[in-house]
Amino acid sequence: MGVLSAAGIPAALAEVAAVVEEALDVLLPLPDGRERRLVEAMRYATLGGGKRLRGFLVMEVAGLFGVARASAARVAASVEMLHAYSLVHDDLPCMDDDDLRRGQPSTHRQFDEATAILAGDALQTRAFELLAGPDTHSDPLARCELVAALGLAAGARGMVGGQMIDMATEGEALDPDEVTRLQALKTGRLIQYSAEAGAILGRAPPPLRAHIAAYGRDLGAAFQIADDVLDAVGTTAGIGKTAGKDQAAGKATVVALLGVERARAQAAMLAEQAAQHLLAFDARAGRLRALAEYVVSRGH
Amino acid sequence: MGVLSAAGIPAALAEVAAVVEEALDVLLPLPDGRERRLVEAMRYATLGGGKRLRGFLVMEVAGLFGVARASAARVAASVEMLHAYSLVHDDLPCMDDDDLRRGQPSTHRQFDEATAILAGDALQTRAFELLAGPDTHSDPLARCELVAALGLAAGARGMVGGQMIDMATEGEALDPDEVTRLQALKTGRLIQYSAEAGAILGRAPPPLRAHIAAYGRDLGAAFQIADDVLDAVGTTAGIGKTAGKDQAAGKATVVALLGVERARAQAAMLAEQAAQHLLAFDARAGRLRALAEYVVSRGH
Repeated sequence: MGVLSAAGIPAALAEVAAVVEEALDVLLPLPDGRERRLVEAMRYATLGGGKRLRGFLVMEVAGLFGVARASAARVAASVEMLHAYSLVHDDLPCMDDDDLRRGQPSTHRQFDEATAILAGDALQTRAFELLAGPDTHSDPLARCELVAALGLAAGARGMVGGQMIDMATEGEALDPDEVTRLQALKTGRLIQYSAEAGAILGRAPPPLRAHIAAYGRDLGAAFQIADDVLDAVGTTAGIGKTAGKDQAAGKATVVALLGVERARAQAAMLAEQAAQHLLAFDARAGRLRALAEYVVSRGH
Repeated sequence: MGVLSAAGIPAALAEVAAVVEEALDVLLPLPDGRERRLVEAMRYATLGGGKRLRGFLVMEVAGLFGVARASAARVAASVEMLHAYSLVHDDLPCMDDDDLRRGQPSTHRQFDEATAILAGDALQTRAFELLAGPDTHSDPLARCELVAALGLAAGARGMVGGQMIDMATEGEALDPDEVTRLQALKTGRLIQYSAEAGAILGRAPPPLRAHIAAYGRDLGAAFQIADDVLDAVGTTAGIGKTAGKDQAAGKATVVALLGVERARAQAAMLAEQAAQHLLAFDARAGRLRALAEYVVSRGH
């Protein structure tokens, strides 16, 4: 472990991604019945790609508290299913209407709209089902906390609420507070949850859980701004999804408000702040600190 | 209580529906933020209508085991949210493309497609979040069981799987076993879950829970066939949704396979069988027995 720089993060992410990928593969078995196409679409949307930032957070934070790797991988897979469902629905024609995701046809392009909607629905269901199962944690109270906290992070007061605001305000000028809230709901809450889930699994004492939550919150905010910067300056090939969409759609982003350079500076400040919340932890938090640096310096 | 006939069920349903409606109203508060439209759509899809068959099952079965009414109402509201989400998504243009639901414009007609998809998504999330919360049951293990069982009933191996089969086989000739499986997944599992949820809340011993599950399974099958009969012989005004849609869409139903009269007979047989599973219970199960008779004799 020891001190790790952002340069080491891609390898660390890849290592954890392989673990999460394997868990996803096992947790989404293909059935023989006529509903097979549904599970094919669920697997298409979930397997084979993505940085697994959320899964990485679950597993790294769980590691701080000595959680068994199999439990953490199962929760990481659940969060990645929840995230994948949100991408499938966000890409639909009546939403962001995006044909590309991770450099591949988005799920409704690869299958069809009905199958994509149902695959997203069933991925959400499966995420909650897995969290509540006995293999997730021996203490049912921990499982309930994982479910309830994911519900709060992912629903109308979290991710879906943020997506609604994003849709409803397209082309409108939002003030900085509104943009910050939109982003916190739309992507921040689930990233924060991913970190907190590791602490819930580890039955972390409340003060440490609060530090982890604060880290996740600031990391999520930094990540989103960095993502918007990439959308503004990146190429479609480089980022694996259609570049320049935010501006074309008149989306309210920090980049649109402040410009690329000041947005970059704000992301860096938030990443620095995220790392500060980890002062209570020893060198084992090195990868989480490096992750904060990485999310604002990555090129894709 | 005592012996109750099917004639008493509409009043019993209405009484429980009022309790469930009040719980839904409290559990879906309108926020002030820009995500308000989302919650308006969630409330539109959920409040103000429906027989609340699923909520009734939760509350009646919970009553057999002496469960506090507030707990049962919360679980009933969760199941109704889950059911409402499935209707909102099923009605979408790329699915069943239905403009009417309960005699009103379906959610995507009243709002728009994106809002309807998001409202359905957030209703599902909220259902799981509520089940996991401490107000649902004092024992977290019971809450976990409620979440895991709903996940199983509602996901790829249950309701959504059934909807996928329904979409994928439109216009195809299915054999009776395939039609039975389709219906069991698409509507049966959630109805069975509704009954089982009352038994989970009541910490029912396994043999009694098995009786309740069998009752729910047969009741669900009877209900679905009766529903298909109504679709075939009813009018749009009478059933509050577009009549004759199944046949027009080439849907695989028991009515299409057997004709109206034999379908009616099979529904009656299943309802009788459902009631038989309640022999282990005393007169307090009178309303559940009467419900089985009611679902196959109702006119809407």
